[in-house]
Amino acid sequence: MYLNRHKATLTFFLLVYIGLLNGQQYAIPFKSPSDCSAEESFDISSLSCVRCGSNQRRSTTGLSCICKTGYQTLTTDTASITCQQCPTDRPAVSKDGFGCIRCPGSVNDEGKCQCPPGNILVERDVNGNLLDEASCEMCNGNSPGLSVPNNSGDRCERCQASFINSSCVCGPPNVLAGGICFPPGSLSTNVNPSVNYDQLKLSVQSAWFFKNLYSSSAACLVFFNLTACQALGNMCVMNMHSFSGVSTDACGLFNTIFRARASFSSTQDISYWRVNLPWLYYGDEPGLATRVLQTDPVPIGFSFRGRNKNTDINLVAAVYNVRGEFLRWEQVGGGNLQLCPQPTTKQAAAFSFGTAYQESCDLSVAELLGTHPEPLFYDVFMDLGGGENRKLLPLPTLVYNQQYNGQFINQEKMKNWYLSRRMFVVDTLSGRERSMSSLPKVIRVASSVKIKFQLVPRTQEGQVFPPLMTVTYRDVAITDINTQTVTTTFAVEYEMDQTEARIKTDTALGVMGGLAVIYSLLKTINWKRRIASPLVNMETMGKFLLFYAGDLANVFFAVTVGSGLYWLIFYKAQQFVSLLLPLPAQEERFATYIGCAFALKAVQFLHKLILQVSTDVFFIDWERPLSKTSRTVQAAGVPKRDPSPVSIWRTYFVANEWNELQTFRKISPTFQIIAVLFFLEVLGFSNLALRDPWPTLERSPEAYTPSYSLMLRYGLAATLWLCIGLLQVIFFTVFHEHFVEDKIRQFVDLCSISNISVLLLSHRCFGYYIHGRSVHGHADTNMEEMNNNLNRESESLCGQRGLLPNTDIQTFQVSLTDRLRSHYDRIREQIGRRNGPSRLIDTSSANQFEQRARGYQTMNHFLGSIIDHAHPDMDYIVKDKLMFERVIGMEFLEPSEKSLFYNDEAHSFSDVLFYGNEATLLIFDTLFFCVVDLGSQSFVLAAVLTCVQQMIFRLIRNTLGRKNLVNKTLVDERFLI
Amino acid sequence: MYLNRHKATLTFFLLVYIGLLNGQQYAIPFKSPSDCSAEESFDISSLSCVRCGSNQRRSTTGLSCICKTGYQTLTTDTASITCQQCPTDRPAVSKDGFGCIRCPGSVNDEGKCQCPPGNILVERDVNGNLLDEASCEMCNGNSPGLSVPNNSGDRCERCQASFINSSCVCGPPNVLAGGICFPPGSLSTNVNPSVNYDQLKLSVQSAWFFKNLYSSSAACLVFFNLTACQALGNMCVMNMHSFSGVSTDACGLFNTIFRARASFSSTQDISYWRVNLPWLYYGDEPGLATRVLQTDPVPIGFSFRGRNKNTDINLVAAVYNVRGEFLRWEQVGGGNLQLCPQPTTKQAAAFSFGTAYQESCDLSVAELLGTHPEPLFYDVFMDLGGGENRKLLPLPTLVYNQQYNGQFINQEKMKNWYLSRRMFVVDTLSGRERSMSSLPKVIRVASSVKIKFQLVPRTQEGQVFPPLMTVTYRDVAITDINTQTVTTTFAVEYEMDQTEARIKTDTALGVMGGLAVIYSLLKTINWKRRIASPLVNMETMGKFLLFYAGDLANVFFAVTVGSGLYWLIFYKAQQFVSLLLPLPAQEERFATYIGCAFALKAVQFLHKLILQVSTDVFFIDWERPLSKTSRTVQAAGVPKRDPSPVSIWRTYFVANEWNELQTFRKISPTFQIIAVLFFLEVLGFSNLALRDPWPTLERSPEAYTPSYSLMLRYGLAATLWLCIGLLQVIFFTVFHEHFVEDKIRQFVDLCSISNISVLLLSHRCFGYYIHGRSVHGHADTNMEEMNNNLNRESESLCGQRGLLPNTDIQTFQVSLTDRLRSHYDRIREQIGRRNGPSRLIDTSSANQFEQRARGYQTMNHFLGSIIDHAHPDMDYIVKDKLMFERVIGMEFLEPSEKSLFYNDEAHSFSDVLFYGNEATLLIFDTLFFCVVDLGSQSFVLAAVLTCVQQMIFRLIRNTLGRKNLVNKTLVDERFLI
Repeated sequence: MYLNRHKATLTFFLLVYIGLLNGQQYAIPFKSPSDCSAEESFDISSLSCVRCGSNQRRSTTGLSCICKTGYQTLTTDTASITCQQCPTDRPAVSKDGFGCIRCPGSVNDEGKCQCPPGNILVERDVNGNLLDEASCEMCNGNSPGLSVPNNSGDRCERCQASFINSSCVCGPPNVLAGGICFPPGSLSTNVNPSVNYDQLKLSVQSAWFFKNLYSSSAACLVFFNLTACQALGNMCVMNMHSFSGVSTDACGLFNTIFRARASFSSTQDISYWRVNLPWLYYGDEPGLATRVLQTDPVPIGFSFRGRNKNTDINLVAAVYNVRGEFLRWEQVGGGNLQLCPQPTTKQAAAFSFGTAYQESCDLSVAELLGTHPEPLFYDVFMDLGGGENRKLLPLPTLVYNQQYNGQFINQEKMKNWYLSRRMFVVDTLSGRERSMSSLPKVIRVASSVKIKFQLVPRTQEGQVFPPLMTVTYRDVAITDINTQTVTTTFAVEYEMDQTEARIKTDTALGVMGGLAVIYSLLKTINWKRRIASPLVNMETMGKFLLFYAGDLANVFFAVTVGSGLYWLIFYKAQQFVSLLLPLPAQEERFATYIGCAFALKAVQFLHKLILQVSTDVFFIDWERPLSKTSRTVQAAGVPKRDPSPVSIWRTYFVANEWNELQTFRKISPTFQIIAVLFFLEVLGFSNLALRDPWPTLERSPEAYTPSYSLMLRYGLAATLWLCIGLLQVIFFTVFHEHFVEDKIRQFVDLCSISNISVLLLSHRCFGYYIHGRSVHGHADTNMEEMNNNLNRESESLCGQRGLLPNTDIQTFQVSLTDRLRSHYDRIREQIGRRNGPSRLIDTSSANQFEQRARGYQTMNHFLGSIIDHAHPDMDYIVKDKLMFERVIGMEFLEPSEKSLFYNDEAHSFSDVLFYGNEATLLIFDTLFFCVVDLGSQSFVLAAVLTCVQQMIFRLIRNTLGRKNLVNKTLVDERFLI
Repeated sequence: MYLNRHKATLTFFLLVYIGLLNGQQYAIPFKSPSDCSAEESFDISSLSCVRCGSNQRRSTTGLSCICKTGYQTLTTDTASITCQQCPTDRPAVSKDGFGCIRCPGSVNDEGKCQCPPGNILVERDVNGNLLDEASCEMCNGNSPGLSVPNNSGDRCERCQASFINSSCVCGPPNVLAGGICFPPGSLSTNVNPSVNYDQLKLSVQSAWFFKNLYSSSAACLVFFNLTACQALGNMCVMNMHSFSGVSTDACGLFNTIFRARASFSSTQDISYWRVNLPWLYYGDEPGLATRVLQTDPVPIGFSFRGRNKNTDINLVAAVYNVRGEFLRWEQVGGGNLQLCPQPTTKQAAAFSFGTAYQESCDLSVAELLGTHPEPLFYDVFMDLGGGENRKLLPLPTLVYNQQYNGQFINQEKMKNWYLSRRMFVVDTLSGRERSMSSLPKVIRVASSVKIKFQLVPRTQEGQVFPPLMTVTYRDVAITDINTQTVTTTFAVEYEMDQTEARIKTDTALGVMGGLAVIYSLLKTINWKRRIASPLVNMETMGKFLLFYAGDLANVFFAVTVGSGLYWLIFYKAQQFVSLLLPLPAQEERFATYIGCAFALKAVQFLHKLILQVSTDVFFIDWERPLSKTSRTVQAAGVPKRDPSPVSIWRTYFVANEWNELQTFRKISPTFQIIAVLFFLEVLGFSNLALRDPWPTLERSPEAYTPSYSLMLRYGLAATLWLCIGLLQVIFFTVFHEHFVEDKIRQFVDLCSISNISVLLLSHRCFGYYIHGRSVHGHADTNMEEMNNNLNRESESLCGQRGLLPNTDIQTFQVSLTDRLRSHYDRIREQIGRRNGPSRLIDTSSANQFEQRARGYQTMNHFLGSIIDHAHPDMDYIVKDKLMFERVIGMEFLEPSEKSLFYNDEAHSFSDVLFYGNEATLLIFDTLFFCVVDLGSQSFVLAAVLTCVQQMIFRLIRNTLGRKNLVNKTLVDERFLI
């Protein structure tokens, strides 16, 4: 009826409704079994305390009621019980509680009969009939009975086998320990059951050691008891394999027995493994660790891909409990050594060869106590496979805290290491002082478990040496279990000998560094020639160092990018493992190289920047007033106010465009940054820099993410930046400049159309010349004529633009003679004397400017006449540069008599702009990006800072460049917009 | 000796060395106890199989040797044992294996004595002496003995309480089941022990149900046995609370007993909770779920910060095992309901109020079988706290798969829900068919556990309704346990009624949309006036729609950013919880609004772009040839080739600068993107969009990371973008333009210096005029004079630049008369007829250009004379705009007689550039960024695409703008560089 929907009675409905309305909302009081009083039991249905019936009290668990002492239980057919007082002639209650009985002796607290020790209590006869009076019977301890009372004291059973020789009584001179009777003289009973917690400077009288140390040792020594030997071994392991001076602690006793077994054959042909004993130590000869760890490779090869792909690290462990019983073979993984709770897929990554694994977490001490009431002991082996004849390779273990006569030998160098076997993860047992159920004073946790693989040098088959397991234990004094935490780490590392790589890198650095010296020397010589100064002075040295900084930066950059790329490609693409990434500690050297490259590149960049903003520039206007036809120079005479002055606007136009070209680059910096970010962060290229061998871009969020390799990150970022930069340069120089627009060529064209030449002097006697004399002789005209001119030119109806007749070449590198330059400087002095020592205070600035403008006119005429060969003593010749000269960017000839104009179709005048220094800028940006990224491990931050850096340097370059232009050409700043 | 270092003997050394050299490397063969043969035992020390002694065989565990059948064990003092055949007179071995004995009856397979059922075997007398011949004794089953043999068959014990009424024999008509004797007629023995797995269309005859269903039901019904009732309830829970048609399955039997208890009082005043029974169901009245879940708030308030901070969700569960025993009270959390292994800190986030939690993983079936041999049952309560009087609120549970007569009622709407209590997580027991130890055919897993909190509407105290726990079970047929996996999810959700927010949003949209209509209408009217067309046609409609698109986009944008920001601020900053984020399903509407805003904004943006690249522009050159002093217009006459033509270079300069201004903006787009990325990704602002109440930017990698809220992400990204944009605009307009450079003012200055005016006509009869007539009358001069002019102006030695005498105002909005425009158009026709119908094919392009240049001259003179008031019929007046006209950007006056020049100091001619439309661009960019981000959930991708989008539109705008400029001003494209 009830469950027949839609038929709830009105009353019921109302009840529910009232219940809901009064806000009680079914809330119930919280009661737990311990909240109930002695006369109440906990009702597991209603989760509340209910009162027991009369003469009843609650049971130990608190979940039911039982009869009070002296009351027998009567059966009823319901769940409840009734109790009745026993009659006075049978005052005690039988053990099952249902009967009343007379006792032969005393009655215990629970109202039941009690017999003296060694006796058993008999309440029923052999057929199960309850006796009126119970009896106490003595067990016959002598042969042939050999019996003692069982645990519940109601039956005689056979006593333990070690007693049998005598009787069930272990009388002197025999020694009774741990329930076993030892013959006299087998082992001194003077053992040391204390456990030292050196990290806490604390020693605990361990209840477990106190109870078991002597008996285990003796049983192992005397009775060859396998589990006893294991238990003794475990106690030594709980002591972290440490030998103190005395030989009565666990490891000392183990060692005593070990020596006593020297006459027996060793187990499994391993001399460190004595029969019946666990294998705890490798030998203690100095250098044994090196031989064990670096002599014979493991007979299997790891391979990352292909048909023979093998990346599984198969570790198995023989698991023993603290009592020395063998529990099972267990696959390592899935949390037995990895204490941190993680999804299985992540934990499994620890055993995939090549994936650098590290996992840390804080564990609650309360939880550890709950999950690890007893320590488990692991003998870890590596499974070599082999089907039927499956073989196991024991993993040498290095206990970091192990002491040898007070010395931490395993923290010293490898020669002194004392390898061992067997480990535990959490030990909450040995620190219990009073009893095994009390709260421990100290617990010991394996705070770091690290498995390290070392690749066999020059292997092509992916062979490794036996992996070393390093265990570090930590002692935690228990103060407040609910708030205390312990940090634990599990890590798998892969290492290879980097000496060879280091030597190669250093060789490359040395050789290329040497070449750089030569190249820098050449550059310095060339520079000396270009400034026409034969003197070797401090400035020359400084210049050499600056050149050398740039070249050395390139060397460092080439070597670091080369290695980064090498690791990236060969590590991620190898089939059989033959390369392993350098560990973080081994990467420091590499980071230093990158730092050097960046610092040196920055020096070069700043040097170039300073040179660029101090270039000498002059615009030569070929336009002559219409009324005059002769082009004779007006010498230093003051030009009269012309009725139709030559308009300055063409010069403004050219200067304006030149100003805009200053920071124009062969790439778009914004696009560069955005594209790099896109590849790294959106397409997931950054995943290539993870310390695992998988070249995949997509990683599932469930998969383990290893840490980043500095080397790979650098290789990846630098390569990507360079590649995108190069692609952009190619796109701009090949496609964009041919089909869309070429700013540099446009500028040269503009010079031509506007009848203005540009002379750029980057050095004292070296510079560039853009020949811009209009083929029409005249450019200062109206739109119609301009258009006509342009049309005529496009239809080749007029002469060619070149400096030499019938040539097209408009751009030149110029080597000036010293004389020419001196002359130039004299005129320049007039123009530039703005901030020089003013002659008189009252000279107005307008006046001053007039003077400068006159200088400008003079310069214009002077340079025009030079180009026109009007000065025979400062003449020049035009020639081609040699191929080799072009390649190394130098001149072999010194302009002694005549200046030299080298044809330069490559527009190399852009060397005084950002445009011509794209390589330097690109490398500087790359290094900046990489250095920021390595420092912050964030590509986004690196991109942001690179962008800001570019903005700042562009601003500086533009501002200073404009100032320079204003100073050198007298063009007002207002026209450079 | 051995451990005394440096004293290893030579032999030993050699042995080790040989061992290492031959590559054995200590590898040992793998053996497990099961690998050993019947005559071998597993040596736990050497981990190998060792042969047992003579007459021995291995024990069951395989870890030791025992004597063969018929052999007694003799004790020795070592670990090994010896075996001796029993003499023929005592051929059997005693139970402990150490003695030989004669049997009264038969001998079993193990060579030990065997007694008939109901008898016990007696081998020793009461004092423990071994008898020569064992005896079989009958237990007295009748009163007063009431005994039966114990489990090992060697002792008589009291039999179970339910038998007592008769004797220890449960004879007919009593029914014996599960070791209990039931009185006749208590419950029909016709029960259905099969479990239905509907998802697999499979029914399993469950061994557990077969053994326990009847006995539990009967014991519960007859004996009021608490654990039996719980066990029956558990079986119903294992059946997912489902009622089939028959009443003989677990839930049917539970219901039967439930009804039978109707007369008893209910437990804890809850009418659905009968005494002695577990509480499994809420009532089945329709609509009860709504009343339970949405009537009374939980009497505690949640608060995110402040003194009363309370975000802990305290859930406790009463845990029962499958046999119905109460195990403990357990805090929910730490993995009991969360099956996925995760660090404790992450799992704990599930119980922090306000943090949307979801965690999924695949679990290996093999592991589940290992960790959950038996199901545990949880009665989940919410702990309301309260110190001494701690109260618990039962959590209603919704079993998603629960069936009610074949109907999945809990998958229907809320009115029909049938709430329940008690759940399990993994059940590997009920699917075992043959025996409890066989492999299960099917396991049932709670594949989804979801706890959902609903906020009380309009609460200011952070009150919630009772949370609902929704459990979805999944049946997994076992095929291959090692490869099978099950996906499980644990989620905590928070919901509030969003109706109010929705209504508010819609109201805002409606009101603002209405205003937008009016504003768009005004704009259309203004547009009609500006094009001087009174006709209302399709074009007008189209224009209206275009305006409306823009305004509506703004409305949508304002509303969405407003709501996003509202949620961001009020959700993250609230103290007492009064707001909860909309669930992903509730966010869809919001996403649609964003989509609308973006689409409409794109329409507006494209519209503006098209208008901008078709603006009419003309540069009026005021320069007159020096030889002429009169400025009379040369009418349509062909100008003679002037001896000193006016240079076009100033026009080129101005045109070039104008071209460069086209895409100049008030912000730096690159900096904008980089700054936004910096804030979001580097400073961690993106963490503000996580679905939790913490306004912190830094999240530790160990902490749980909830999913992102679309709403918060949008609010955050849009606000950040707008803020940085606004800051940039303020920086540029306030600081940069005043102290560094102001491109727009520079352009106006340039016009003035170069003696060129600019007329821009954005509409047919409306546009902008920049008055650039040089105050010196002449600009086409040399550097000296230019400088003098500039100096004179800076020293205020000449007139002011304004159009009107003694004013400074150079920029105007112009409303032209229809007549003026018609005249203008006629001249314009001459200039623009480049691609028009050519008159004759043989007309050379140069000739054509000459004609156009003539047109250009005509226009120059015409416009010059207009400005000079030389055309009385097309005169103009200069006036100020009204305040209101400025604000809404319209003109009230129609230019009928005279054209109107409005003073415009705000340089509003930039409206035809990107510069004047920063708001539109900024909003468009913001929306683009947000839309890409919402689609891809990646700020980096959004930044990349926004940057590319900006580049593309800048390119389009520049290219088309330049084409337009070339067309309209005849300036050759080569000068626009």
